[in-house]
Amino acid sequence: MNNSPRLLAAVDMGSNSFRLMIGRVDETPTANGPASQIFQVDALREPVRLAAGLTPDKYLDQPARRRGIDALRRFGDRLRDFPPDQVRAVATNTLRVAKNASEFLIEAEAALGFPIEVIAGREEARLIYLGASHDAPVCQGNRLVVDIGGGSTEFIIGSGYQSKLMESLYIGCVSHSRHFFPSGNVDEYAMKQAELAARREIQVLVRQYRAAGWEQAVGSSGTARALAELIELNGMNDNPAEHGITREGLERLKRALVKAENTNRVKLAGLKADRIPVLPGGLSIMLGVFAELDIDRMDVTDGALRLGVLYDLLGRSHHEDMRTVTVDQFMRRYGVDRSQATRVRSAATTLLSQFPEPPPHERREDNLGLLGWAASLHEVGMSISHSGYHKHSAYIATHADMPGFSKTDQARLAALLLGHAGKLGKLSGSGKFLDWRMLFSLRLAFVLCRRRSDAPLPDIRVSQRSDALDEGFEVRVPKTWIEANPLVEYSLAQEADEWQRVGKRYKVVYA
Amino acid sequence: MNNSPRLLAAVDMGSNSFRLMIGRVDETPTANGPASQIFQVDALREPVRLAAGLTPDKYLDQPARRRGIDALRRFGDRLRDFPPDQVRAVATNTLRVAKNASEFLIEAEAALGFPIEVIAGREEARLIYLGASHDAPVCQGNRLVVDIGGGSTEFIIGSGYQSKLMESLYIGCVSHSRHFFPSGNVDEYAMKQAELAARREIQVLVRQYRAAGWEQAVGSSGTARALAELIELNGMNDNPAEHGITREGLERLKRALVKAENTNRVKLAGLKADRIPVLPGGLSIMLGVFAELDIDRMDVTDGALRLGVLYDLLGRSHHEDMRTVTVDQFMRRYGVDRSQATRVRSAATTLLSQFPEPPPHERREDNLGLLGWAASLHEVGMSISHSGYHKHSAYIATHADMPGFSKTDQARLAALLLGHAGKLGKLSGSGKFLDWRMLFSLRLAFVLCRRRSDAPLPDIRVSQRSDALDEGFEVRVPKTWIEANPLVEYSLAQEADEWQRVGKRYKVVYA
Repeated sequence: MNNSPRLLAAVDMGSNSFRLMIGRVDETPTANGPASQIFQVDALREPVRLAAGLTPDKYLDQPARRRGIDALRRFGDRLRDFPPDQVRAVATNTLRVAKNASEFLIEAEAALGFPIEVIAGREEARLIYLGASHDAPVCQGNRLVVDIGGGSTEFIIGSGYQSKLMESLYIGCVSHSRHFFPSGNVDEYAMKQAELAARREIQVLVRQYRAAGWEQAVGSSGTARALAELIELNGMNDNPAEHGITREGLERLKRALVKAENTNRVKLAGLKADRIPVLPGGLSIMLGVFAELDIDRMDVTDGALRLGVLYDLLGRSHHEDMRTVTVDQFMRRYGVDRSQATRVRSAATTLLSQFPEPPPHERREDNLGLLGWAASLHEVGMSISHSGYHKHSAYIATHADMPGFSKTDQARLAALLLGHAGKLGKLSGSGKFLDWRMLFSLRLAFVLCRRRSDAPLPDIRVSQRSDALDEGFEVRVPKTWIEANPLVEYSLAQEADEWQRVGKRYKVVYA
Repeated sequence: MNNSPRLLAAVDMGSNSFRLMIGRVDETPTANGPASQIFQVDALREPVRLAAGLTPDKYLDQPARRRGIDALRRFGDRLRDFPPDQVRAVATNTLRVAKNASEFLIEAEAALGFPIEVIAGREEARLIYLGASHDAPVCQGNRLVVDIGGGSTEFIIGSGYQSKLMESLYIGCVSHSRHFFPSGNVDEYAMKQAELAARREIQVLVRQYRAAGWEQAVGSSGTARALAELIELNGMNDNPAEHGITREGLERLKRALVKAENTNRVKLAGLKADRIPVLPGGLSIMLGVFAELDIDRMDVTDGALRLGVLYDLLGRSHHEDMRTVTVDQFMRRYGVDRSQATRVRSAATTLLSQFPEPPPHERREDNLGLLGWAASLHEVGMSISHSGYHKHSAYIATHADMPGFSKTDQARLAALLLGHAGKLGKLSGSGKFLDWRMLFSLRLAFVLCRRRSDAPLPDIRVSQRSDALDEGFEVRVPKTWIEANPLVEYSLAQEADEWQRVGKRYKVVYA
């Protein structure tokens, strides 16, 4: 990072809220030339609810226009010093349908100080996919992105950074909430009707989309994010540690709404005041999406349209795995000693490769990849302080904006970083995110490489002691080598004690 | 930070433990040329307890020699790739007095692979002061540093980075514990005798040291750090939020030891196994130091001798305020937008200067300094992620190794960083570390500078509403200016709401 970074801005005039996102462009050199990533540096959000001001005969009413213009004046104030080629403002469904849109847009452009494009549904879908593909977890096959907006919902299937199928349907959380849940009253019947109405719309694309298929479903709008937060914060997923939206989480949320009878009486952790009026509509559409497309679980990404606008402004596409670029960017940003990271990565992956194939739902190369990234990043926390740096590394992996990584990836990474040195007892809370073989390999590599020397390591053999109920480990080290490396010998003895303290055998054999 | 940093290593063969510290040299340009700071990147500690192996006729026994040689072989292993001019190994009291020291040293140098210097007590004192002065909170006048080692205790008075008075006395936590608390038995009588013995030794320097005087007392050894941790973790200071050692904290700790009757029965949070045998001796010496030198409170710094050895290797002295260098180093390390930091700093300090003098125990220039540093660092957390970056900034200020700052300074800084944006309710836990005027000034500066523009700000007048019981604030902004800055107007309205939510008035007047 330097001190005069390149900044880009996107204005997203959605049917529910208007948003401004300012991003910084960071370049990372790769084998295929520099890869650019965009990191958010500022954001403004105004709950304009433009769609709520659309009269039955499709005119924007005066109060909604006023809210919109006021919001744009404030955005324009923030953007005053931006050159025009670094700003792009787009408006979506409500301004596509409002009969007095062009009149409003003249005033709106004056308030913002930049031109505004009303973009078509397919262009919106393309931009959403472009943004989501840069932010969502990396995925090998096809990816389905669903963006429930205030007035329309976009469905996109793509792979990599390229969208292939795009549809925009006229269902949205604002319009659906107004139609099916007037005054915020929610009951079983209205919920059913709203879900059915959504399903009816979605049916038009089901056959084609199912035929294309997907490996990963991503929800990319404020609605998806709000639903995921409510489900997570209120422990509504079957596995409370799970991130994202699950079918059973949506069902539990529906029951909570129906039980409250009116949105104003809903008491849920994490429910934001301006989300309340659009919650039942958004929920019923999402239920329809899950039912028609037979989805069990959905990842969530935020700000996809705005991020897509920024990447489109940047005008480059990537052929790298976004996670590799992110890890490289982080090593640079936090001044990691690259030679040491390389040593630890090479030792750790060599050790892990000696174990038999992982269980069927895991892929060996995924595990090797994650372990390699953990090795590359294990020292990032030293940028904060040496003392307790493993905790700082885990803090960064937990909280940082890491394009291409899912929240679950970040949690697994954080568990490895926290556990790579020191006591093992502290990992009791990391439960399902922790893979003991990976942790074992990383800790052993850390011990072996502590001297930061380029001298080659000897042939060290590791195995899991399948005879033991506790699945302990065995490490075989050449005797001649260990005699010349007393610090390693001492550290291995400490390592054995530490594993035994958490009830796992750790046998070191010098032969 | 670059990827092949300059590293220096110090080996400290103390009477209680042997320690290795590896530091990275970071250079920051200042008006007086580059300022170098050393940040720890690796550390090893071996509880050798060499002094415990000293026979009554001052010979090092075989088990202690063995422990020492084993520890040095492991250090040597870690240091194998270091050039000799980047390593300095020093030995202190036990090797000054052991009659078979030179025989031991031949073996020790072979094990370590580097020459070892047995340093005189005064040289030890000079190095301790050099290290402590780079790590302890900045202090205007004289600073007293007390270093209770295993076999000797050093007393140094200096100012800035320069030591002036140095004494080394033959009292230490290992020898004192063995003499007064054999088998770990502790009672009121033995405690009194041990404290009196310490006072008798200390008396020789009391007159001269009191005449020189000091503004700040610092404890710089493992004993001081262990005492501070025990007192803090067990809430033994009168004010449990206070950092460091207080007289009443020492008294409470003494009562806990006497009550337990034997060190093996002491149950205290944070008590480490290898500290137990030397705790009563160390405590009684510290009680003697507080009594003879009439100290009420002591800051604590760690690793002063090793840090002093490293700074001595570096061979430069500083004439800058170490805190300014640290803040500059952090802005560089975390890629802070310097122009924005400068804008916020200038606006915030201009606002704070409009308030009347602070209460008598505070100095206006100290408050302006702290506020300026907070402004310089408020965006450091953006290096982790934009979302919730104020929390990440506070995390860094809390946990980072910040030469020249006290833990209390860091806590005050962290409270300002956490509170500079967003909700005020989250600050309820920051209590005594929070100054509302400073926070008010920083938040207002943040709002005024959000556009990151170099356009000059108008004359904004602030005052504290002394008529109101809640000590609310009033902000007067020129009407003509606010009309051209709608984002500021909107943010000020939100700001007023936010302050009222925590029960403080916030009146904005446009005139």
